[in-house]
Amino acid sequence: MNKVGVIMGSKSDLPVMQDAIDILKDFNIEVEVDIVSAHRTPEKLFDYGKHAHTKGFAVIIAGAGGAAHLPGMIASLSPLPVIGVPVKSSNSIDGWDSVLSILQMPGGVPVATVALNGAKNAGILAAQIIGTSNSSVLEKIIDYKESLKQIVYESAKDLK
Amino acid sequence: MNKVGVIMGSKSDLPVMQDAIDILKDFNIEVEVDIVSAHRTPEKLFDYGKHAHTKGFAVIIAGAGGAAHLPGMIASLSPLPVIGVPVKSSNSIDGWDSVLSILQMPGGVPVATVALNGAKNAGILAAQIIGTSNSSVLEKIIDYKESLKQIVYESAKDLK
Amino acid sequence: MNKVGVIMGSKSDLPVMQDAIDILKDFNIEVEVDIVSAHRTPEKLFDYGKHAHTKGFAVIIAGAGGAAHLPGMIASLSPLPVIGVPVKSSNSIDGWDSVLSILQMPGGVPVATVALNGAKNAGILAAQIIGTSNSSVLEKIIDYKESLKQIVYESAKDLK
Amino acid sequence: MNKVGVIMGSKSDLPVMQDAIDILKDFNIEVEVDIVSAHRTPEKLFDYGKHAHTKGFAVIIAGAGGAAHLPGMIASLSPLPVIGVPVKSSNSIDGWDSVLSILQMPGGVPVATVALNGAKNAGILAAQIIGTSNSSVLEKIIDYKESLKQIVYESAKDLK
Amino acid sequence: MNKVGVIMGSKSDLPVMQDAIDILKDFNIEVEVDIVSAHRTPEKLFDYGKHAHTKGFAVIIAGAGGAAHLPGMIASLSPLPVIGVPVKSSNSIDGWDSVLSILQMPGGVPVATVALNGAKNAGILAAQIIGTSNSSVLEKIIDYKESLKQIVYESAKDLK
Amino acid sequence: MNKVGVIMGSKSDLPVMQDAIDILKDFNIEVEVDIVSAHRTPEKLFDYGKHAHTKGFAVIIAGAGGAAHLPGMIASLSPLPVIGVPVKSSNSIDGWDSVLSILQMPGGVPVATVALNGAKNAGILAAQIIGTSNSSVLEKIIDYKESLKQIVYESAKDLK
Amino acid sequence: MNKVGVIMGSKSDLPVMQDAIDILKDFNIEVEVDIVSAHRTPEKLFDYGKHAHTKGFAVIIAGAGGAAHLPGMIASLSPLPVIGVPVKSSNSIDGWDSVLSILQMPGGVPVATVALNGAKNAGILAAQIIGTSNSSVLEKIIDYKESLKQIVYESAKDLK
Amino acid sequence: MNKVGVIMGSKSDLPVMQDAIDILKDFNIEVEVDIVSAHRTPEKLFDYGKHAHTKGFAVIIAGAGGAAHLPGMIASLSPLPVIGVPVKSSNSIDGWDSVLSILQMPGGVPVATVALNGAKNAGILAAQIIGTSNSSVLEKIIDYKESLKQIVYESAKDLK
Repeated sequence: MNKVGVIMGSKSDLPVMQDAIDILKDFNIEVEVDIVSAHRTPEKLFDYGKHAHTKGFAVIIAGAGGAAHLPGMIASLSPLPVIGVPVKSSNSIDGWDSVLSILQMPGGVPVATVALNGAKNAGILAAQIIGTSNSSVLEKIIDYKESLKQIVYESAKDLK
Repeated sequence: MNKVGVIMGSKSDLPVMQDAIDILKDFNIEVEVDIVSAHRTPEKLFDYGKHAHTKGFAVIIAGAGGAAHLPGMIASLSPLPVIGVPVKSSNSIDGWDSVLSILQMPGGVPVATVALNGAKNAGILAAQIIGTSNSSVLEKIIDYKESLKQIVYESAKDLK
Repeated sequence: MNKVGVIMGSKSDLPVMQDAIDILKDFNIEVEVDIVSAHRTPEKLFDYGKHAHTKGFAVIIAGAGGAAHLPGMIASLSPLPVIGVPVKSSNSIDGWDSVLSILQMPGGVPVATVALNGAKNAGILAAQIIGTSNSSVLEKIIDYKESLKQIVYESAKDLK
Repeated sequence: MNKVGVIMGSKSDLPVMQDAIDILKDFNIEVEVDIVSAHRTPEKLFDYGKHAHTKGFAVIIAGAGGAAHLPGMIASLSPLPVIGVPVKSSNSIDGWDSVLSILQMPGGVPVATVALNGAKNAGILAAQIIGTSNSSVLEKIIDYKESLKQIVYESAKDLK
Repeated sequence: MNKVGVIMGSKSDLPVMQDAIDILKDFNIEVEVDIVSAHRTPEKLFDYGKHAHTKGFAVIIAGAGGAAHLPGMIASLSPLPVIGVPVKSSNSIDGWDSVLSILQMPGGVPVATVALNGAKNAGILAAQIIGTSNSSVLEKIIDYKESLKQIVYESAKDLK
Repeated sequence: MNKVGVIMGSKSDLPVMQDAIDILKDFNIEVEVDIVSAHRTPEKLFDYGKHAHTKGFAVIIAGAGGAAHLPGMIASLSPLPVIGVPVKSSNSIDGWDSVLSILQMPGGVPVATVALNGAKNAGILAAQIIGTSNSSVLEKIIDYKESLKQIVYESAKDLK
Repeated sequence: MNKVGVIMGSKSDLPVMQDAIDILKDFNIEVEVDIVSAHRTPEKLFDYGKHAHTKGFAVIIAGAGGAAHLPGMIASLSPLPVIGVPVKSSNSIDGWDSVLSILQMPGGVPVATVALNGAKNAGILAAQIIGTSNSSVLEKIIDYKESLKQIVYESAKDLK
Repeated sequence: MNKVGVIMGSKSDLPVMQDAIDILKDFNIEVEVDIVSAHRTPEKLFDYGKHAHTKGFAVIIAGAGGAAHLPGMIASLSPLPVIGVPVKSSNSIDGWDSVLSILQMPGGVPVATVALNGAKNAGILAAQIIGTSNSSVLEKIIDYKESLKQIVYESAKDLK
């Protein structure tokens, strides 16, 4: 059970959500992408959320903007860890609506929320979750963190 | 089709939502109250939303707090007008999360949002909607507005 | 009584409010558009609000920005359901003023508020209200929701 | 023309608005207090706003909370300077709605807004306005400012 | 005593503040413009505030952005009515700092605050203040409000 | 590797963080609690973050308030998934500082943020993460979600 | 030049500002306390700011709430480092006005702002500034930071 | 001990932070610039913070955006005064996250926070701190403040 589902409320969220897909591929983790709209395709939402844990998914990453109900509704339906990406879509009030309607879930139904438009971090977090039982993925994360360090060291050298 | 459904995400929302029930009863409108949690009873949510318009409901009033998904998800499932009441529950950040996650619905799926804890206005709005095709209810609303006026006139007289 | 009044505080609100007009026309609902400024034409406001329910209107949609008083003042004057559209006009502080001065109406005088710039949803909500007593409009809404679903299914197919 | 009208949307605003009345009486300025609700008594609002400048008023102070339309609507109707007091009423979201729906008036129709619950300052401002053509009131304001100074000097002395 | 002082913290505020100057000239009211920085020319601030009421000014309009102390400090020093214009300058956080540091004055020292970038309204308010003792200016304001009305009526006619 | 570390910046965070400890014990998951202050014990922070993944921890839950740096700094140091709990501590501005300084991590270093004071959800999320490789924990989560449902059904029955 | 001036806008700020006085006394740094109101005693403000650097002060700590102009105006008048303490006074909107009107100073005139009600940190910061040229004070700060560490270690031990 | 360290979380912060470097050079104060990322190079952060006071630094200026932990973590590690510059980086929510995660430090560990993107003021504040024990730097600050004044006087003359 090592696959990550990346879903979004609308195709217009793809430019933001692509960062999650890319980083997961960098970590050699299998990704399945889909569009699932809580408000326009509730039946698909229901079906997706109810069965994801029986279809080989370990983690679901859900991105949405405005009154963003997709991550929370998937979390309502699935026993898997759900990562929510607040998207600063065109119909959002500076992103506050996206953030608050994903973050402020009631007790019993968590959504692991990342920064506004933080799809890259959603991908890394999904990898870290898989890494808790997969030492090869854990190693890749350790290497990735090392590479972040090198980039800073080099840009510091450039500065001087 | 003249019945109003009043639902809420948790029994703890009842003290706020009671105002909607009371004013509807004052208008002699039939009310059916239920607890439907988007996050804890998604199947009931689904069933409620899909069938409300076939069960004699004209309007649904849904109240919830925090990452409040109940009104929007009912609006996703039902063709009826849905009125959302943002509840300032204990797990809310000053009510902003409740307001934004109900108000900021995407194009295609409206929720008629009232003020924070504004359940009384939700009830009046439901009556106004029914009044668009029921002249006796419309008359009651005209009378009600007249009564509001008298209260102000009397308190102004008291002041002097 | 099946006509919808769409009014706005200024001609500059028309690009936003056009979405309400268009969707109502798609639903074959009669629309009457006007400019009524709460702050510049208070007499017209007064006249409009007092008599709308005697002129064949079922619902009024009012859009305004900044200290947006038009929807609330119409709701003060009319027994009809009033839908408020907060417009993110140039003199607005990120839309917060538009939203709060429409949403936060006192007990007794509701405004059915939709999302910032959400005129399309205002139109759909007006149709839903008319649909509570007009089964042909209700059917159109059910069809409309079905069409939203198909768009998502197709964009999901495109993605794969 | 030296009278100040102090109006408020509801008797519950009186504890806040009393500060304006008291300070104006300290300045020996004639005050007339009334309750005028934009949302519940629109006819009275209309009448008050249209005729205030013909009835000996120089300035109008209007206090309201939540979606506070009273000050702006009076300013719409009257050529007199209107001072708005945002009241942090029980139905307000931390006062932000009261502040923004009074402050953010469109070009052409100003409201002189004071601090949240700042009725005392509204009274002083009204006196300052009258003082622009009444040197005895101007003198009182100069004396008042001097008295504020003495209070600080004395509390500084106490501290040491 | 019929002159209006228009001051601003920096020359970069002039494009916003010009609206106040223009409308006052339209009303044939004498205007004197100056740059007075609370933070960079405190001596000039002090001198301006202390003596304005002895130099023929009736009202002072002060515009500033960010931590905007100019209007409040002038109000501290002068017995005249002071109108504050919050400017959304480049160093401002969406205008919130400008608004709050002008509006939220302590009891005893009012600033008549207008909308963000609302210099036009500051000019009209200054005219209204002068109009309380100058019937010719009062007439001009009544005419001005009438002209606003005509613009709306015409744009409504255009729409149809 | 199935142990969860629950750390907090100060003993005063314990009443909030206890919810995470309790729910993890309900799921029979081993918990180790500690106080680690990013600002007062940076060496302990460093040591904890660098070595947690070699000491049998699968997930770290970190709670902090105000300028809450603990979750982000642990995420900086550890390859494990880190869950952040924004605590509404006494030195917090309505919780906004706690939320934003945990949520808004830069690309490369995610923190799985839960609701303000949402320690219970942090515990459930940690269990869900362990459940991705431990079917007995996954079963317990499925049972737990079922129990949430029953509570709602019963309170709905009580209502009627 | 090793003395710290602690000033505040009103005696009501003393309970908050006392923390600065206490910690400075713990560090054996000379403190002089005074009440200086930007809005009620502008002459004293002017005098204080102009001459502080000639009277043996090294640093000035200024606390104020609401439209808090004291720290910025002192910074305008004095070449010394000025530390601003935003006070959450009763006339403040949740502290946001206090924070923004102290923090958002224009280029050229800094105020070293600390957390809302963070007078203790203002005192420590003043000590750190003196410590840059006084090795005995620097040693005390190093010891103080060590003592913070011990408190955490002990409360961590208590927990276990 | 008269050197100022200017550090930032990422090379992308340099355009903002350059203002601090430039003004310090204008004051003839030695500056050392480096990139230190709290989240990507925690070891460098640790080393920098622990040893800065032994390497001739008097003050450290740290700039960062989003969940900005660099200034607070340096303040945790160093006994020197730390000045924090909230940077409105691309991953920031209108700068609120940057401001709050730098400003709202807990009691015991101050960060001297300046305005959003206020690196110039950070440089001036560092100079003022050095000026507390260096009369030549103090003189330069007095001259600098005088030059600010002249610029305003000249732009005021231009206006007339």
